[in-house]
Amino acid sequence: MEQKFDEIIKTLGRAQNVLVVTHVFPDGDALGSLLAMGDILESLGKNVVLYSEEKVSHLYDFLPGSNKLVTTLPDLSVFDCALALDCGDKYRLGKEMDRLLEVHPFIMIDHHAGNKKFGDISWVDPKRASTAEMVFDLSVALDTDLSYDAAYCLYAAIVSDTGSFKYSSTTAETFRVARELIVKGVKPSEVAGKLFDNFTVSRLSLMNEVLASLQLYENNQIALITVTQEMFDKTGASPGDTETFINYPRSLGTVKVAAFVKENKGDEISVSLRSKGKDCDVAQVAEKFGGGGHRNAAGFRVPKEDINEVRNRLLKEVRAMINANSV
Amino acid sequence: MEQKFDEIIKTLGRAQNVLVVTHVFPDGDALGSLLAMGDILESLGKNVVLYSEEKVSHLYDFLPGSNKLVTTLPDLSVFDCALALDCGDKYRLGKEMDRLLEVHPFIMIDHHAGNKKFGDISWVDPKRASTAEMVFDLSVALDTDLSYDAAYCLYAAIVSDTGSFKYSSTTAETFRVARELIVKGVKPSEVAGKLFDNFTVSRLSLMNEVLASLQLYENNQIALITVTQEMFDKTGASPGDTETFINYPRSLGTVKVAAFVKENKGDEISVSLRSKGKDCDVAQVAEKFGGGGHRNAAGFRVPKEDINEVRNRLLKEVRAMINANSV
Repeated sequence: MEQKFDEIIKTLGRAQNVLVVTHVFPDGDALGSLLAMGDILESLGKNVVLYSEEKVSHLYDFLPGSNKLVTTLPDLSVFDCALALDCGDKYRLGKEMDRLLEVHPFIMIDHHAGNKKFGDISWVDPKRASTAEMVFDLSVALDTDLSYDAAYCLYAAIVSDTGSFKYSSTTAETFRVARELIVKGVKPSEVAGKLFDNFTVSRLSLMNEVLASLQLYENNQIALITVTQEMFDKTGASPGDTETFINYPRSLGTVKVAAFVKENKGDEISVSLRSKGKDCDVAQVAEKFGGGGHRNAAGFRVPKEDINEVRNRLLKEVRAMINANSV
Repeated sequence: MEQKFDEIIKTLGRAQNVLVVTHVFPDGDALGSLLAMGDILESLGKNVVLYSEEKVSHLYDFLPGSNKLVTTLPDLSVFDCALALDCGDKYRLGKEMDRLLEVHPFIMIDHHAGNKKFGDISWVDPKRASTAEMVFDLSVALDTDLSYDAAYCLYAAIVSDTGSFKYSSTTAETFRVARELIVKGVKPSEVAGKLFDNFTVSRLSLMNEVLASLQLYENNQIALITVTQEMFDKTGASPGDTETFINYPRSLGTVKVAAFVKENKGDEISVSLRSKGKDCDVAQVAEKFGGGGHRNAAGFRVPKEDINEVRNRLLKEVRAMINANSV
């Protein structure tokens, strides 16, 4: 690792025109790391272009500098270095992948386990909870005085990618970096407010409707919630508003498997599955319906049909798994 | 401060039989600090009794050592020191207050702003996000090797009192201490799971009832939720289950003041108030009803009467504050 790290420091030190990119549908860590990296390189007198094929989601447009992103690629011949952040796979670079990879040297920095290395120099550390922590270490090695804006972006990235220090990826290193960022003046409650306290009334109303749909099976080991088109119509909320609702059935102490059955606007029903611990592998359930995922988080889509039918078939599979494990 | 701190270190060093207490209806910080302090003093060879007038709530009985608490006071003449943790006011010592205060020297350690000092030696630091952080500093000064159990209790206390590092009380010091505790082997996701993913079905049902009570005023700047005795009866949940519900109305982007009106089993109605930022000081509202608190978190109790009447009087005060600020 150290050799790669030193090589990256040297390469960035030499470069004058740097293109910084991240993955498609960028999340908080992707955007926070990207914006901070841009700020760091600019403070070193580099010319920097930050590229993402989508404009910044309204969930993250509070990040300082988010208006600097460009969504169309400029002439790439001017760049003497490209840097991809938080990108576990070259295909996640998006539709401009081929053109992007023609810039050399191409540096890749990421924290995802199972990263499929690409580019000329890669630094991957799956022990880190976020790419933002790695960007922080780069800023120290580059001997820059991190600006408040860059610190803010990195802190938001860390909070976003760890669920505010709750996920199992959170380490002592995460807290070390978070502390350094707070020392730079970042207010934890301000960032948390932007990330977590920005509910709309329609989202809260929808949450209430969805929670009321809770069904429990097998001595409360299976919890199922449902959202229907009728609930969207009634509350005025949008499908994106349901993003974290699965956490509520999952949060029940007795629950081993939580499922969220979603009737979307299109002609599909999508299902999110969560499990806790090592007993139940919900990816196996999802695969039976043509979906996939990990042991503790998976999902699938089926053509729109009677929602009760989907629930019943799902329930049968989950029950079978739970009963097989309890023998 | 340092003088008080040194005096406490010396006093605890000399003491042989220590009674450690906290406030009534102990929350995560109170219990975590209490249990860790007990463990620290025992590691120094002291005899320790941990007292609380209520048994540990099921929300916190995962804390290691929580079975060690006694709910009836033993013969107090054996103690050569008492220590109250997280207790902002002597009346919060509960029904045994008078007897407890007869133990000398009586040490008091707390982080609440507006602490009304009592006892013989007091160390109050309202800049700290939790009493647990102060107990950690004591453990360092006492030169003890903090056990895993004590570290776990302190970490849980910090997470509990900062809403997982989201509240405005969270500082660089909070992260410094959290990091030290993680280094001791505490797993952040395990503690978060116990604190946040251990809902009961009745608690989730109650949450659903309470969310359905949401009322909004002044262009959604005021959000009010209510729990009634009927809802408790219907769901089988207990008053302790409502602890974090105020966060939902508070999480609405437009909301400046959130209020939670609670009809309890006793002959009182209690009200929790939250505000965001610097505009609205809910402590001022609470004081008009004989209560108190901080700018962003306060509360009060009134004798049980028509709950609509309480809501109306409260709303009048909150409206007046919001309109005064928007002029």
